[in-house]
Order: sequence, then C-alpha cells, then structure tokens
Amino acid sequence: MALSPLFPFSERTRALHAELAAFIRDRVLPAEAEFDAHLEQPGQRWTIPPVIETLKAEAKQRGLWNLFLPDPHHGAGLSNLDYAPLAELSGQSLIAPETINCNAPDTGNMEVLHHYGSPQQQERWLQPLLMGRTRSAFAMTEPDVASSDATNIATRIERDGDHHVVTGRKWWITGAMDPRLDFFIVMGVTHPDAEPHRRHSQIIVPKATPGVTVVRPLHLFGFDDAPNGHAEVRFDGARVPLDHLIAGEGRGFEIAQGRLGPGRIHHCMRLIGLAQRALDAMVSRARTRIAFHRPLADQGMVREAIALSRCDIEQARLLTLSAAMKLDAGGARGAKDEIGMIKIVAPRMAQRVIDRAIQVHGALGVSEDSFLSKAYAGARALSLADGPDEVHLTALAKSMVAVR
Amino acid sequence: MALSPLFPFSERTRALHAELAAFIRDRVLPAEAEFDAHLEQPGQRWTIPPVIETLKAEAKQRGLWNLFLPDPHHGAGLSNLDYAPLAELSGQSLIAPETINCNAPDTGNMEVLHHYGSPQQQERWLQPLLMGRTRSAFAMTEPDVASSDATNIATRIERDGDHHVVTGRKWWITGAMDPRLDFFIVMGVTHPDAEPHRRHSQIIVPKATPGVTVVRPLHLFGFDDAPNGHAEVRFDGARVPLDHLIAGEGRGFEIAQGRLGPGRIHHCMRLIGLAQRALDAMVSRARTRIAFHRPLADQGMVREAIALSRCDIEQARLLTLSAAMKLDAGGARGAKDEIGMIKIVAPRMAQRVIDRAIQVHGALGVSEDSFLSKAYAGARALSLADGPDEVHLTALAKSMVAVR
Amino acid sequence: MALSPLFPFSERTRALHAELAAFIRDRVLPAEAEFDAHLEQPGQRWTIPPVIETLKAEAKQRGLWNLFLPDPHHGAGLSNLDYAPLAELSGQSLIAPETINCNAPDTGNMEVLHHYGSPQQQERWLQPLLMGRTRSAFAMTEPDVASSDATNIATRIERDGDHHVVTGRKWWITGAMDPRLDFFIVMGVTHPDAEPHRRHSQIIVPKATPGVTVVRPLHLFGFDDAPNGHAEVRFDGARVPLDHLIAGEGRGFEIAQGRLGPGRIHHCMRLIGLAQRALDAMVSRARTRIAFHRPLADQGMVREAIALSRCDIEQARLLTLSAAMKLDAGGARGAKDEIGMIKIVAPRMAQRVIDRAIQVHGALGVSEDSFLSKAYAGARALSLADGPDEVHLTALAKSMVAVR
Amino acid sequence: MALSPLFPFSERTRALHAELAAFIRDRVLPAEAEFDAHLEQPGQRWTIPPVIETLKAEAKQRGLWNLFLPDPHHGAGLSNLDYAPLAELSGQSLIAPETINCNAPDTGNMEVLHHYGSPQQQERWLQPLLMGRTRSAFAMTEPDVASSDATNIATRIERDGDHHVVTGRKWWITGAMDPRLDFFIVMGVTHPDAEPHRRHSQIIVPKATPGVTVVRPLHLFGFDDAPNGHAEVRFDGARVPLDHLIAGEGRGFEIAQGRLGPGRIHHCMRLIGLAQRALDAMVSRARTRIAFHRPLADQGMVREAIALSRCDIEQARLLTLSAAMKLDAGGARGAKDEIGMIKIVAPRMAQRVIDRAIQVHGALGVSEDSFLSKAYAGARALSLADGPDEVHLTALAKSMVAVR
Repeated sequence: MALSPLFPFSERTRALHAELAAFIRDRVLPAEAEFDAHLEQPGQRWTIPPVIETLKAEAKQRGLWNLFLPDPHHGAGLSNLDYAPLAELSGQSLIAPETINCNAPDTGNMEVLHHYGSPQQQERWLQPLLMGRTRSAFAMTEPDVASSDATNIATRIERDGDHHVVTGRKWWITGAMDPRLDFFIVMGVTHPDAEPHRRHSQIIVPKATPGVTVVRPLHLFGFDDAPNGHAEVRFDGARVPLDHLIAGEGRGFEIAQGRLGPGRIHHCMRLIGLAQRALDAMVSRARTRIAFHRPLADQGMVREAIALSRCDIEQARLLTLSAAMKLDAGGARGAKDEIGMIKIVAPRMAQRVIDRAIQVHGALGVSEDSFLSKAYAGARALSLADGPDEVHLTALAKSMVAVR
Repeated sequence: MALSPLFPFSERTRALHAELAAFIRDRVLPAEAEFDAHLEQPGQRWTIPPVIETLKAEAKQRGLWNLFLPDPHHGAGLSNLDYAPLAELSGQSLIAPETINCNAPDTGNMEVLHHYGSPQQQERWLQPLLMGRTRSAFAMTEPDVASSDATNIATRIERDGDHHVVTGRKWWITGAMDPRLDFFIVMGVTHPDAEPHRRHSQIIVPKATPGVTVVRPLHLFGFDDAPNGHAEVRFDGARVPLDHLIAGEGRGFEIAQGRLGPGRIHHCMRLIGLAQRALDAMVSRARTRIAFHRPLADQGMVREAIALSRCDIEQARLLTLSAAMKLDAGGARGAKDEIGMIKIVAPRMAQRVIDRAIQVHGALGVSEDSFLSKAYAGARALSLADGPDEVHLTALAKSMVAVR
Repeated sequence: MALSPLFPFSERTRALHAELAAFIRDRVLPAEAEFDAHLEQPGQRWTIPPVIETLKAEAKQRGLWNLFLPDPHHGAGLSNLDYAPLAELSGQSLIAPETINCNAPDTGNMEVLHHYGSPQQQERWLQPLLMGRTRSAFAMTEPDVASSDATNIATRIERDGDHHVVTGRKWWITGAMDPRLDFFIVMGVTHPDAEPHRRHSQIIVPKATPGVTVVRPLHLFGFDDAPNGHAEVRFDGARVPLDHLIAGEGRGFEIAQGRLGPGRIHHCMRLIGLAQRALDAMVSRARTRIAFHRPLADQGMVREAIALSRCDIEQARLLTLSAAMKLDAGGARGAKDEIGMIKIVAPRMAQRVIDRAIQVHGALGVSEDSFLSKAYAGARALSLADGPDEVHLTALAKSMVAVR
Repeated sequence: MALSPLFPFSERTRALHAELAAFIRDRVLPAEAEFDAHLEQPGQRWTIPPVIETLKAEAKQRGLWNLFLPDPHHGAGLSNLDYAPLAELSGQSLIAPETINCNAPDTGNMEVLHHYGSPQQQERWLQPLLMGRTRSAFAMTEPDVASSDATNIATRIERDGDHHVVTGRKWWITGAMDPRLDFFIVMGVTHPDAEPHRRHSQIIVPKATPGVTVVRPLHLFGFDDAPNGHAEVRFDGARVPLDHLIAGEGRGFEIAQGRLGPGRIHHCMRLIGLAQRALDAMVSRARTRIAFHRPLADQGMVREAIALSRCDIEQARLLTLSAAMKLDAGGARGAKDEIGMIKIVAPRMAQRVIDRAIQVHGALGVSEDSFLSKAYAGARALSLADGPDEVHLTALAKSMVAVR
C-alpha cells in the first residue's frame, strides 16, 4: 500500500500516512477485540467502549485528527487527494474512522456546518463535534418514499411563530443510537409549492427535543453496528427555534449536493482499505490453510481469486485518487462524473473482493470470528446508500450522451 | 410455480403440492411475524415460539409430514423427484421446513438412522425425531482443519472399556442451540492408522453427556438463526456406551457420503423456493414503488434484473429436478455429477437473485423488515456448507475428464 | 449426449436420435474438411461443395429429413419436444442442418408456406424446398432502421395494376448468396396508414425478378459463411404478380410472429449442440495438452472452466426442452415467456462456453484450424438476430409485471 | 480523451499528444476506408496500400516517429509513462501504429536489436527498421507445444561449422505475410541439455534464406489482418552465418523477458484507445438510433452499458499509466506484478466494452461496416498472446503469496 507515484501527494500526507499506518497497525487493529468484547457484555450494547476514547485522545496527540476537512482552520487542511490514502488506511478497521474523528456522518455534518452554519451554529454544534466530544446524525432517508429521488422526501418543516415544527419518519439514521448523540440535521420540506429543487431545507434538531423518538435500531444483514447504529427516528411535531435552520429556507438540496460529493468519495476511499484488508487476509489464509494436502495458495481457483482481487483493488484505488484530484480541481460539480464512477465501482469491487475472501476462509469467513461478513454487509449497503447504483449509472450515461 | 410437464410427477405429489402451497401461503407465511416477535422478547431468544408447535400439529394432520424420507414405513415414501417441488415450496419460508418435519440437519440424521441405525437406535433416537418431539444435530465441521477434505477431521473417538470417549472441537453445528436438542451424531477418528476413508466413525452422543459443552452460538453474517442456531461445541472426553456407534467402526465416511447426496439436493430445492420468493417480492416492489415519477418496473435496469432472475431460477429448478430424477434412478453415486452441478449452481443463483431483489428494495432490502438479507446470508453459506464450490467444481471436472 | 431416458421423448425420436447421432458422427463431421477445402479453391467460394448434396441424399434415405416440420404430411410430424434433441445434434456442425433439410431460413420459409401459402404457392415454391432442390431467403432486416422494432421496417410493397412493386434495402439476408437460391420472402409495408401491426405484408419475390440485386456478401466477424452467406440485397421496383403475396395484405406481422417462435427455439436447440461440441473439445484438449509439466486438466482454472460449462449447458438444455414442451402445449403465444427466456439464455451460454473453450485451446482456438471462432461468431450474432437481448428482457419483464 | 493535466506527463508528451491526436483524427481515421478498399481489389490482398507509405512520410515529418523507443539516439527518448497516452491514441485505429513506426512486432524487434544487437546487426537490420524501410517478424509460438511455457519451445538452432541451422515449425508469426518483410528473429533451442532457462537462443534469419517457407496466412476469427498477416512458417534446415545469433548462446530467455515487458504494456495502451473508440461509437449510436420511439440513449440497459464501459476504461487506463510509471522506475522485473495486472485486465476490459458496443450497434456491429468485430477479435487474441490470462493470474498470485 505504498503511495502511488502517479499522484502528487504532499510531503505532509506522506508523513501522516506513515504515522496513521503505524497507529492503525499498532493501536487500532489490536483494539478491535476489546471493542467487541465490551459491546457483548450485558447492558453495554449501546454504550461506548472506553478504548475508543483512549484511542481518540492518542490520535489527537499524534496529529491524526479531522484529516477529512480541507479547511485549515477547522480541520487538517488537506486536499481530497491528500486525504484519500489516509481515509483508505482508516477503512481497514470499522472502528478506525472514529478514532481520528473522520467517521460518517459526523464528517458530513461538520462540512455542512463549516460551509453553511452561522457563527452561533458553529460555536454551539460544530465545535464540540470537531473536538470529538459529541456525535451527530443526518436524517434524510425515509421509509415511505424512494429517497434516491430526493424530491420525494416528505418530512415537513413548518414555521409556527418563532419555531419550526418538524414532522416525519426517517430511517437508516446512522449514529442515532449513539449515547453521545447531540443533534440531528434533518432534511425536510419547507416550501411544498416551490420548484422541486427549492422545496427542502435542512435544520438542526437537538436530540433532546420533545417529539423526537428513536424508535428502534435497524440491522444491516443482521448487524446492529453498535454502539453507533442505524435507527428509525420519528419527528412528531418537534419544535426548534428558527435559528436552527441552516443557511436559509429552500437551500436543502444545495446543501445536500455539496455534502454528498465528498461524502461519497470518502466512503469509497475507506472501501479500498477494507477490500485491501480482505485481500491481505485472503493471502494470509491461502498461505497457511491446508486442504487436500496442499496450501490453498497452490490451488488454481484460489490463485485466480487472489490475483483478480488485486487487479480489482488497484484499479478502484487509482480511480478514487483520480476522482479526488478532480474534486480538488473542479469541485463537486466539475467532478460529478468521476464521483459517480467511483460510487458505482468501489462498492461492487469491495463486495467481489470480500466475497472471494469469505470463500477462501470457509466457514470462518461467514462467522463473527472474522471481520469479513460485517465488511461485506457494509460494502453491500454502499451500493444503495447515497443513491443506488442505478441512479448513478443513469446520471453518468446521461452526462456522457449530453456532452458535445 | 406450476409443476413442469417435463417431469413425471406422481398424482400424489400433485395433491401434496396443492395442499402444501395452501398451508404455506395461508398458515406459515402469516406466522413469520409472530415467530420473530417471540424471539425478540427478553429472555426468549433460545426458546421455541409456540406457533411452531401449532403449525407442526396442523401439518401432521394435513398429511404434510416427513415428506423427505423415501421410505414408506418411516416417511412419506416419495421419490426425490416427487419431493423436489414440495421442498421448493418449503424453501420459501425459513420456518416452513420444520413445520413439516423436513428441516436440516434432522432430515439427514433421520436418514442415517433409518439406513444405518440398529433397531435399538431407531427406537430410542429415530422415533422421537420422526414424531417431531426431539431435535438433533450433526457434528462434523471443525474450526481447526479444512473440513471440506473430510480426511482432515481430527476429533477422536477412542474406545475405553465398554465406552467410546469423544474428544474434539466442532463448530457450525446447526440446531445445537435448540432447547429441544436430544443428541448429536458426531463424526470422528476411530482408526487413525487405517487408510484415509476407513479412519472415521459416526457415533450418537446424547446432549446431556458430561463433557459436552455448547460453547457459544455462531452468527452467519449477523444472524444467529435462533432458536435453532449454529454452535461451537466441545467434546472433552465425553463417554458414551459402545452401542451408540452407528453401523460399525470405520464406516463414518460411507455414512457421510450417503447422507450428503440427498442433503445437498434438499438444500438446493429449498433455495429455488427462496429465490422464487425473492423474485416475487422484486416484481411486487417494482410494480408499486415510484422513483423519478415512474414505477421501478418501467426502468430498464430493473426490468433486466427481473427477467434475468426468472431465467436463472427456471434453469436451476430444472437442473434440480433433473438431478433428483437421476438420484432416484442411480443413487447418490450414479447422480454425483448432477448433484455436484446443482450444489454449484443453486447457491450462486440464489445469491444473484436475492442480491438483485435487495437492490430493487433499496434500504428496506438490507434491513430486518424484509426477509431478503437473511435469505442472502443463508444462500451464501451454502456455497461453503457441504463442501465449498471449489471442491465440487474440481470433482465435476475430474469426473468429466476421466470418462472414456 | 445420450438422450435422457427420463424425459418423455417418443420412441420414434429415440430411434431418430440414434440414427442422426451416427450420421453426424460418421458422415457429417468427417466431411467438414472436404466442405472447407472445396470453398477455398479459387472461384469456388460461392458454389456448393458436392459433399453437401451427397450427404443430403444419404440423410433422406436414412429418414433424416424435414424433421423440423410438425406437420406429418409436409414434414416429419414431430412435436417440438421431440425435435429438440435432434436439432441439438445437428447444431454440432455448422453444415449438418442443411444435410437434413433443417437449416434456417429455409425451415422458417417452409413453415410459412405450409401454414399460409396458397395451394399454388405450395406447389411452386414449397415443394422444391421440401425436396431440398431449391433454397430460399427471408428478407426482413434493414440497415437503416432498428428492425428489432418491426414497425420500423420501411421497404414498400405497392400495388400497381396486377403486380406488386417492391422497393427497399435489406441486409443480413441469410442464404442470399447461395447459387441455388430460388426466391425471397420479403417483408414490407403495404398499408402505411394502418395501425402499426397491420401495415406490413409478406410477399414471394423470385430471385430472377428484374430489380433484385444481391449487392454484396456480408461478413460476421470475419466470416462470410459461404456458400450460403448473408447478403445486402436491393429491391428497386421489383415487380411480382399479385398472387405472390402470402395470406393477405396486412398480415405480415402475424406471419412473422408465427415464424419467429419456432425459429428462435430451433436456433437455441442448435446452440446447445454447438456448445456441447465446444465443451467436448475443451475436455479433450485439457486431457492431452501439457503446460508447466502437467496436463491442462490438472490446473484449477481449467477445471473451473470445464465444470462451469457443463453446468451452463445442462441448464440451457433443460430450459430449451421445457420451452419446446410449452410450445407444443400452448403455441407461440402461450410459450412466449419461455421462448423469450431461451432466446436470452442460449446465445449467452454458448458464447461463455465457446469462449472458455477458445481460452483452453490457446492460439489454436482463435484460428481456422478449430471450429471455435466461427462458432463464437455464430453464437454472438444470435444475441442480436431475431431480436436483441434487450428486447426480449424487456418483453419478459413486462409480461411478469403485468400478470397478477 | 484529452490528456489529464493532473498527471506528471512531460511538456514534450503534451505537445506530441496534441499533434498525434490531430494526425489520427484528420489523416489516419479518414484513410481507413482507402486502406480497406486497396486490399479488396483482386490480387492486392498482400500488398501495401500506398496510403500507408504516404502517412508514414507525413508522420515522420511531424515528428511522430519511433515514439515507443526510450533511447534518445535510436528512438524518441520518451519514458513509458510519456509514451502511454500516445500509444493509446494510436490504438484507436488498427492502421495507426504502423504509420508512426510503432507497430508490433517491429517495436519489440527494434528494442531487442537496440539492446542486444552487435554494431553490425544494428547497422544491417535495425537501421532500416528504424527508418520504416523494412519490416520484421518474431518467430516464437509453435503449434505443437504450449508456448505459454516457453521451456516447451522445440525449434532447434544447431551449429554446423560457421553456420547455425534452424529447424522447426512456428505459427501466428505476425507480419510474416508482409511483402516488405526483411527478416525473422527466431527463438529456438541451442543447448538442449542446459538448465531450462539457458537452453534457448535468438537468431536473425533473413526471409530469403533457403529452407524458410511461409506456409499460409492464419485467420483470427475469420480476419486475415492483411497485409501484415499472421503466418505459419516452416524452417527446414535454414542456414545462417554464426554472426546472426543475438547476444550470445543460451540468452534467448533473457532477451524474450526483456522484450515482453514493454511489449505487453504497449498492447494494453493500444487496447485502451481501441476500447475508447468503441465507447465513443456506442455513445454516438445511442444518441441517434431510434427504437420503440425513443433514442437508444433513453433506454436503461443501454445507459448501463455506456456507464459501465466508461468505468471500465478509466480504471484500466489508470492501471496502465501506473504500470508504465513502475516500469520506468523499476524495469521489467520490478514492474512484473503491475505488468501482469494490466495484461490480465486490459484485454478483458476491451472485450467487454467492445462487446457492449456491438450489442448497441445491432447487426451493423458484427459486420465489416463497423470496426467493432475486428476490434473484438484483436482484443480477444490478447487474452492469449504474450501468455494466456491463466499464466499471468498464476504468476501474480504466486508473487503475492511469496512476499512477506
């Protein structure tokens, strides 16, 4: 996983890459067992394993903090290209991103508040997030409509005197089960009669607001992803002061678009790291596991699985780096084709690679004694989250056909 | 899902098919929610939802019982071909097979005891199973060796006076978490110096035997498959009387082979039904879900998913029926190529179809509000269970190259 | 490729199958080299190798003639199910179908004239075809429009006194290069203002008609498929008597639909045979070719290719038999989903299998010293001919979504 | 296909890229029809269309000459990275590479003579090649052995006094049909008893040598690739002076390895260009072709084909650039994994993309009126040429498993 010479990474990123690689190898990966063990104790499912806070403190001290945020004041000031190999490293472990304060959806929320938040909003909601003292959620997806077409989103945000009243049902709200959750950013309709892309707004809803109910944790292929979780959340006339609205009424779409570009690419960077870990595990297993009197690594179909996986990963990695570089140069709009491409490619690649790794691991691969089945579930979800493949394929093709 | 005219199904099967279809549609599918709700209550995870026993009683009364067993005395007396479409129907619901006493691994254990059990063994262990009053497990797979090459199996069964002493570690022992569990059939080495296929024996080990520890439930992806479960089990010098050995020392392999032929084909039959249910759900979702102002069913990529899934299912169904007919005509040895083919084809087909259904369902598809993610996990496991695809591909190719 | 004793084939088909298998093995396959050699001689490219007529005479004598035609008066009187394994056998060799008078497009033309031809048309045009004395072509596809949507077909058939005048440009007219060509059946517009499916008619145009120009042979990949060929043909005001119109004005669509059902399934039957021959060649090559000190058959990726190919072929064969049976029972309309399925499945299957066989054959596989590359080209074309896959996928999905 | 400003290409390459793009667009692509027309004239199949020499003269004048050769004295002095986008451009047209003197196998032969040739050999054989006045061939592959394992190569090169005597049968000798052919470089055994990688030598055999017979042109999927062609060649005791041996006896393997690294990557660069042209054609067709009342570009399955093809191409392009950079930094040995990866990836990618383009083009796509079927054949051959995929997959996996 040396850094590709094809891309102009900064010296700073090279140094951070070495530091982060060591941190993850020496501190994070060995902590996974402790993390899991904490959660398996009775009554601790939705509490935070102390090791997480320990690792966060250490990461901060090592300068591995808020690497995702290009702004040098609020964040690390890295370009998307420079962040990419770091995000990849963090993707190796499902617990790593939070240890460096680079986990979704907090990253997206921090970006939104950084770009669109009022000074008061930044002071009250952003600062604690940047410090890693609170957690947040982003409430967009709804069970009753095809949220891939965001004009369908139906939750209402209605003005009533000096408050906005939020009413609707959301699900797959990542982080909503976290005991440290401070607030939701909710996407909903403020102007039902405006043209479709000016109908929605985004608003901050503190967790403690009356009318907010975290209904239940949802499971992804059986996994609850504790202690952050994904929840169904109901907003039953939740009232928040007017100043909780972000940026201005009718700008919900614009904010969502700005968020999703980097958000999608971050997911893909992490998927590269996850797939790489699966490949490393596959190679290691193939070296040592004996069947029919030979190591698996001597068997043709296993060799094919290994070799194709490397081809798949290398290509997706290069495409992701290329998209990050394009995003730096042209913004989310200028890089929309490239972001669409990695959004299609990376989850499918990761699913293929992880699936092959599962096969090489046999029964171990589908069990909780390996990270693979949980990794698969995560990769699978990303062919749906932030827009299903079909939406991105369609947008990409339309863009290509339209040009000229 | 009308019965194919290409195959000579008996009148009795046609009648049973109609009866079973009605039973599943009217009684089993509506009971799934109650089944799940029972298990989600605190403290009830590993207890049997009463609805199961209710459905069993009803199925028995309707003549839908032990359909899998070709022997007319102990079972329903159907050929494999005649059982196939019934097993397919039962595969639609993960709870249906047990309601008709046709669930793995009890089916395989019943077949083993029917074929190889002594009269005393049949009286004590088989009869209660046939009645549905007890449950059983089959302890073959081990975590420390590649069990796909059964000569690797290392658990020892050593004679000590008038007992056999069983020592070893097993995992993925389906049904071992079930509170009704009566006994294990354990595969282990009795003759370490014999030629590889004469080393092993199979022995009945009652659950209550000292030295037997059910260590923990295992998860398939994130699913524990309660209340039957898959467990890690330790045998630490568990002593059982000599008459608990099945058929004779050194015959473990022979018994395993006889069991796996029908066992594999039954899994495949059920997978056809599961995939068909996924396709039905996909079609239904595509009809009603609106995105971008049109039902999903109007969108080309969704149409492709639907059409290809039907092509996939129909072909796998026909191949399974063909293999069943071959099994009836030539026994497990005569039908080994055909059984190998469906063992390769059916799980992959089901994974493809279910994955497409998940995609069409969006976030719902990966959640517990749909049967799809659990179905996917089950189908995925069957590319590993009873021999990973690579073993079957190799055996099939060797058989083809050898002929002439 | 022995005929399964388990399927409901008639005794007559079993006897014909044995006879045809022997004829192809002993007479047709050995004649392929002579056939090719004839065509490679200067000036003989578009002449008929005498061995073809020899084989035709012999086949007729052996009772292997017009097996495709279900009518017992004009043809062999076999059901589609009974014809299926015979067509499969004939598909093994690209020259076999003609030797038994079962080659496209003559088969389709014979069916059309049998069903829709007037007694005079049958006497003049059908009888010689049935005898194998003449050849015919079917002129439907046009270069300038998407013929997959047959309402696009633009060739005009205009009445002028006691003649019809045909004007248009056709291509991919199979058989049009054959020196024995007697006539075309041309699809064109007679009623441009009628509703779309009543606009077209089919008409017999003798080859010798002034205004008919065979412009050039077309190549499929690099193959000209001499001596039958596929040609571009121009009709520049070609005049034919009114009695050359088939069945009645405006019935072109109806006739085409009736023709395409059996035509599609016949193609698929033959593709099964072609794929089977490719698999047989792959197995044979794997047994004997040594690389890296071992036969290819010992190498895992080759084994996978062999095993998967058998799985693919068996499934497509069963689907084809199933569709044939449905066609017998319900006609082309009743079997449209099943015919759609095999039309999608069989060409793709054959391409996969043949492509694997090519890979196992190495450089030989892409050369003219093997039948494989020509077989691939033929299979590839059938994902386009008689409607591209996309049209069949769409129709199948629409049919499934519509049913309730 | 503008050259990305983000990659570290030299200014010189950027200038050459613009020049070459214009040359191909304005001069080469429009000349394809004239090239084809010349060859279709009677008696001209194996003669050189004059337009080729015209274009060569023009390219030389524009500074577009010998771009492939990193040596600044004999060639253009570009790194592999800098050559990559130029080779990609040339891959768009099957006739372009020769117009800039960058066509296989002359490129490989020039590299061999540049690196290993004696001054006399360079004077006599290399200089005319560099000038584009002669053509050459590389005779390695043999029909009777699996040449993928080069130790199998059986042609003998035996010393007899002051000559070497060459005896053996070769095939797929690209360029051997070219009337301008000057010489072969032949790989054969000089030391049958040495260890396997020291047995072979390479030797220059002038075309006019008695005993050299060009037996016949071979066809690739029906294409003869005139006027260069691929031939079967017999060496029946062909005698050449001792000084025609290259570099020294027993160094055949070493020379072949040095040649194959750049040779493989050049093929892949060109395949990217070929696939890109197929995608451009697909997009253009989708925009304009109407079926079922809408442009193909409005149909979901076509959109998917377009979008996936772009994802495929971009990834393979980046992987190729990355491999080129590695080759520049570490030589063929240091970049062997990367070269193995693109050798596996690029031909498969090109086959997928071209196949989709064929499907979108319908009957046109498989005919000679489109470049697509010939492009497909070429891409397919490259999953076999220079080592079949299985060999590269195996080598890549072994390399990965070996590293610790």
